[in-house]
Amino acid sequence: MGIGNNMTRVDAFDKVTGSAKYTADLEPQGLLAAKVIRSTIANGVVKSFDLEEALKVPGVVKIVTCFDVPDIQFPTPGHPWSVETAHQDIADRKLLNTRVRVYGDDIAAVIAEDDIAAARAARLVKVEYEEYAPLLTVKDAMAEGATRLHDEKPGNVIAHSSFVVGEGTYGEAVKEEGLVEIEKDYRTQSVQHCHIETPISFAYMEKGRIIVTTSTQIPHIVRRVISQALGLPMGRIRVIKPYIGGGFGNKQDVLYEPLNAFLTTQVGGRGVRMEISREETLGCTRVRHAIEFKVKAAARKDGTLVARKLEAYSNQGGYASHAHAIVANSSNEFKQIYKDEKVLESDAWTVYTNLATGGAMRGYGIPQAAFAAECMADDLALALHMDPLEFRKKNCMRPGYVDPHTHVKCNTYGLAECMEKGREFIRWDEKRREYENQTGPVRKGIGMAIFCYKTGVYPISLETASCRMILNQDGSMQLQMGATEIGQGADTVFTQMAAEVTGITEDKVNVLSTQDTDVSPFDTGAYASRQTYVSGMAVKKTGAIFKEKILDYAAYMLEKPQDTLDVRDNHIVDKETGKQLLPMEDLATTAFYSLDRSVHITAEATSHCKTNTFATGVCFAEVEVDMPLGKVKVTNIVNVHDSGKLINPKLAAAQVHGGMSMGLGYGLSEELLFDAKGRPLNDNLLDYKLPTAMDTPDLNALFVELDDPTGPFGNKALGEPPAIPVAPAVRNAVLNATGVAVDSLPMDPQKMVKHFKEAGLI
Amino acid sequence: MGIGNNMTRVDAFDKVTGSAKYTADLEPQGLLAAKVIRSTIANGVVKSFDLEEALKVPGVVKIVTCFDVPDIQFPTPGHPWSVETAHQDIADRKLLNTRVRVYGDDIAAVIAEDDIAAARAARLVKVEYEEYAPLLTVKDAMAEGATRLHDEKPGNVIAHSSFVVGEGTYGEAVKEEGLVEIEKDYRTQSVQHCHIETPISFAYMEKGRIIVTTSTQIPHIVRRVISQALGLPMGRIRVIKPYIGGGFGNKQDVLYEPLNAFLTTQVGGRGVRMEISREETLGCTRVRHAIEFKVKAAARKDGTLVARKLEAYSNQGGYASHAHAIVANSSNEFKQIYKDEKVLESDAWTVYTNLATGGAMRGYGIPQAAFAAECMADDLALALHMDPLEFRKKNCMRPGYVDPHTHVKCNTYGLAECMEKGREFIRWDEKRREYENQTGPVRKGIGMAIFCYKTGVYPISLETASCRMILNQDGSMQLQMGATEIGQGADTVFTQMAAEVTGITEDKVNVLSTQDTDVSPFDTGAYASRQTYVSGMAVKKTGAIFKEKILDYAAYMLEKPQDTLDVRDNHIVDKETGKQLLPMEDLATTAFYSLDRSVHITAEATSHCKTNTFATGVCFAEVEVDMPLGKVKVTNIVNVHDSGKLINPKLAAAQVHGGMSMGLGYGLSEELLFDAKGRPLNDNLLDYKLPTAMDTPDLNALFVELDDPTGPFGNKALGEPPAIPVAPAVRNAVLNATGVAVDSLPMDPQKMVKHFKEAGLI
Repeated sequence: MGIGNNMTRVDAFDKVTGSAKYTADLEPQGLLAAKVIRSTIANGVVKSFDLEEALKVPGVVKIVTCFDVPDIQFPTPGHPWSVETAHQDIADRKLLNTRVRVYGDDIAAVIAEDDIAAARAARLVKVEYEEYAPLLTVKDAMAEGATRLHDEKPGNVIAHSSFVVGEGTYGEAVKEEGLVEIEKDYRTQSVQHCHIETPISFAYMEKGRIIVTTSTQIPHIVRRVISQALGLPMGRIRVIKPYIGGGFGNKQDVLYEPLNAFLTTQVGGRGVRMEISREETLGCTRVRHAIEFKVKAAARKDGTLVARKLEAYSNQGGYASHAHAIVANSSNEFKQIYKDEKVLESDAWTVYTNLATGGAMRGYGIPQAAFAAECMADDLALALHMDPLEFRKKNCMRPGYVDPHTHVKCNTYGLAECMEKGREFIRWDEKRREYENQTGPVRKGIGMAIFCYKTGVYPISLETASCRMILNQDGSMQLQMGATEIGQGADTVFTQMAAEVTGITEDKVNVLSTQDTDVSPFDTGAYASRQTYVSGMAVKKTGAIFKEKILDYAAYMLEKPQDTLDVRDNHIVDKETGKQLLPMEDLATTAFYSLDRSVHITAEATSHCKTNTFATGVCFAEVEVDMPLGKVKVTNIVNVHDSGKLINPKLAAAQVHGGMSMGLGYGLSEELLFDAKGRPLNDNLLDYKLPTAMDTPDLNALFVELDDPTGPFGNKALGEPPAIPVAPAVRNAVLNATGVAVDSLPMDPQKMVKHFKEAGLI
Repeated sequence: MGIGNNMTRVDAFDKVTGSAKYTADLEPQGLLAAKVIRSTIANGVVKSFDLEEALKVPGVVKIVTCFDVPDIQFPTPGHPWSVETAHQDIADRKLLNTRVRVYGDDIAAVIAEDDIAAARAARLVKVEYEEYAPLLTVKDAMAEGATRLHDEKPGNVIAHSSFVVGEGTYGEAVKEEGLVEIEKDYRTQSVQHCHIETPISFAYMEKGRIIVTTSTQIPHIVRRVISQALGLPMGRIRVIKPYIGGGFGNKQDVLYEPLNAFLTTQVGGRGVRMEISREETLGCTRVRHAIEFKVKAAARKDGTLVARKLEAYSNQGGYASHAHAIVANSSNEFKQIYKDEKVLESDAWTVYTNLATGGAMRGYGIPQAAFAAECMADDLALALHMDPLEFRKKNCMRPGYVDPHTHVKCNTYGLAECMEKGREFIRWDEKRREYENQTGPVRKGIGMAIFCYKTGVYPISLETASCRMILNQDGSMQLQMGATEIGQGADTVFTQMAAEVTGITEDKVNVLSTQDTDVSPFDTGAYASRQTYVSGMAVKKTGAIFKEKILDYAAYMLEKPQDTLDVRDNHIVDKETGKQLLPMEDLATTAFYSLDRSVHITAEATSHCKTNTFATGVCFAEVEVDMPLGKVKVTNIVNVHDSGKLINPKLAAAQVHGGMSMGLGYGLSEELLFDAKGRPLNDNLLDYKLPTAMDTPDLNALFVELDDPTGPFGNKALGEPPAIPVAPAVRNAVLNATGVAVDSLPMDPQKMVKHFKEAGLI
């Protein structure tokens, strides 16, 4: 019981048997169907609609266009709100947009009696545009005279940030004699989350309020954004989140809920459902930002990293969404994971283009940064003729590291031990030796990559979470979280935490898996690897209050001093001897039904988290590269994570497996492609190459468990980290195998064949 | 703002436009349909089933019979639980019964893919019975050698209770010389609640728990009874109550929810819906108990009531349900509303028969008692040649009355003023004179009846209620009650109370109209005219805590002492001057999003109510009786209620109108009829004569508003009282018009023609 045990997921049975209820399962009777009408250009302005034919389709109820929506711009990212305007997200879109910035932009919506009528009508809507040349690259968008995509901005650069760590400039630092210097351009591609359940929601009105049930990671934030988008007070909006079939950050943007909410208001509050197809999801929701990193790095011959200079260009796509927060996070990773003896200069730009909009995705800029930083590490180590592991051990983040800007501290440091553990698991030294001097078309290699990741968003943003506990008549309890289960197992670990803190065993803890902003405690939701840490603190705090209330009643029933009592294993016990004095069920029944003193024992509390801590880790990968086929086969791979104490080791391993799989797709096969008009070329799961089970090697997860003093149960971030180091580890293994340094993702066969040809290897 | 104002119902718009969501509106996708297979005998035993043909019907998933259900007997009435066995309700039925006690008893259930398949299969199920002669009357059931309907009982008498108020016996008291004595037999009939929405529920399983959404007045009690019926811990059951289309006490019994819950467990947790038809509702749910009152009463010539003797026989039907609580309540009314100078002897019996089961119905035994007591009052006044109003003024309940057994006190006394107010409204004295000495076939008359009614169930049972309040980001609030809106306007008055207590205006109070036992505060539900009083106390208590938390945050923001601040009209104000210092919206937004101190302000509290108080009132009715047609037309009618302070006068009047309409049906047209086999003869709304708008006169509602010291806002019972005095007032008006004393209900044309013929009037 309690934390540290491999409790079976609380939702395992329901999810495996198909009885778990997702949004579509909960659709009430009689909903109308809505379909978004999308622009067939990537850059331009809608001049007019001809709706005549569309409106004739039987079953069409209403067509709403970009000329009918409130003149309100709103932001979509799932960030905690700030009362200070400067810290608020960029409000750069309307419910439907007249100014088109992406191919498939939301320009109108049909509401009909069913999906078929809606789809038929959508096809018959005629649109007249004023079209501009699409801006597909950061360079195009930053060029003099480029079309401005958002009138509020003087140009297409959303933000440019810079910092220097250390003294002087990179240019001054590399004047030192005898340095080995590299200058590289690392590029990451645009990929999509590919959650199984595409965005889906339904909305209706009740008592003048709008109720939206949606597949989201962030119900409380969805509520706020709908309120902003519609210009309605937040209290008039209610958001309900059932089980969701994956999110990975895409559902940390408020995508179609505001439009769905608006549409119900256009049909007198009748229920309207909105399901976004796979094609729409790939091209018209959010993607991982493609970022170009221009890196210079210099080291002494002994391997000491002396200085680096980074320029990062993030392709934002048509709308700001999480915008500069992503590449800013990338720059931080660069800064944190390695120490430059003299100086690190960093500049980062986020730029609007006409490609699919970049948003949050597991890792939030760090998988991109890790690709650049870890390619750099290996490329520099190679130039130094140094073992890449030794290079890292020499230059990586140190115990007690404190970020000079955010003051986030490395409270517990497991990185060195992670590297050692992985080194041993993969037999690094032996393999590195073994793979020297290979010949022939198929070669083997071994590589690695490290990372660090903070836990939650403090102090950059607010970290706050609440929890409520309710005692049932049978001595079981309800656990109500504002934090959300999005497939990662949050409900299970919260259940374990509640058991740990209250003395009520897990089998008697009923966690509510649905959040409802009308009644769920507030929590900003699932992102930033924050919930087990930040929301876990709320469980801990609430549990302590809850237990005190139980003990207060126990003291009344038993006529004993409260401080001599405790709760263990569903019993009130003598604190000293552990003797069972009263079953919790008897206490609970009495508390409900006593004619003398009836109390419904509940507790609710907010935890305002003002700490943060670094998680770290490493990936070691071994590959077999078939150069003529351009095929990279991962033959062995291990992630070793320093994520503090594990609440549930099995679930932690599962979390790592999922992240590693995502990292492999990122490294080897996934890329969302666009044509010259900005139209997605592979916006479906046949042409977009998500790895399948067939493509996936055995995934190994190891941990270095240190008890983090700031974590509620010694724990720290684990949600996103596993996805971070995989792609660069594989890339470095390919480098080790073939000597070819691939500087862009993915390493798909086409690209690899090209590289090997250029290198004269095939 | 606040209490005492005519706020429009919070659900008015949704209910009028049809957008309010009831159980059927919320059915998720893919539910199976269940249909109960009912006995075609009223008394006997199921010997065997032949399911062969039924199981062949395409779409049939499963048939469950009375031989397949757990061997657990459970109680159905919606009473608060008691930890003492002696105070628990009678557990005398199983999920499906082998021993059949009513025509249409639940003996099996079909689960099928849809309603049609279920109905087809149900018709094909063949049942073999051992049949006994049905016991239709209390006399038959009490007779020596009558079949025992429940083996646990030695006979068919469920309970017999007696009490004496005063000294000696009735026999001794009437030895006094010069008394006027009457001896009468008053009978009330079996009627049904006829809520518009028949019982409906659906159930499925999640995480090994059973979730039941149902049209009920008492979700938390439904949870408990399902747990008992299935032998599962209470925490494994979740009950959700959406809007309901009427209940009137029928949905204070746990009718089909346990069976529905069981059926989902029989199909692996798949969703199963269960809708009970109108015919099933009339014959197989609950009815108002038919009670026979044998009354003796004696008074002095000056009108002083000297002694009474009451024998009451309550026909319980096949199952105990609320059982003896009903007729015990009847006896109490007899005791409380009139004072006998010497003695009142009372005996009451509740007896099983094979008719439809009696349960709770608005008034809970008092409409029956009031019919007997108020007929008696007029019959005795007539014998004394005394004005019936004068007789009542002389003998009725007095200020400060304390029930000798329950110690419930008449804390505020409005009865005399009610009578005066009604007397004036109806022009009693003038009309009584006018209607003396009429001749001809159509005659007019005027009558009256009084009553008293306690508020909630303390001290007989537990009275406990909880409430939760949540501050939203925009300064609006959520109000979460365990108490239920069942059409009476509870949500509206709770909203007004919350506004009154918190200083947040009603338009910013969002009351949750759905109860969900997983997250709603505990409350026993809607019955016993308790919610405005008992649950209102919870609103008041919680509101005070909530406001203190708001003021605590205000003190922090404003840097002023908390005790100098107050909340008024959505602002923090200076308590002394009323000066507005801070809008609530600013406070709320800051409390959520402050980087310095983030708190989600909520409050939750239990109010354990340990008071009670009497509401009283009177009905005056004027009739025109067409004797050859046997038709009684009510030409003027007024109810005057002493219900304490009115929270919402318009809603209070609406409550009275509804009750009066119910009373008119009870008095004039409604009766559930059975044939000699115990089979309902008029179990549909064509043959069962519920009054329509065409039958209904203008309904007048007046109030005497006294500030009850025990009520949270000076209020006391009003939910049930309006239904109580109408039938006897009309009966007494008929007596006044024609001299014919009708001693049984209803006064339908057939019966009236018979009476007038017997009296030689036609």
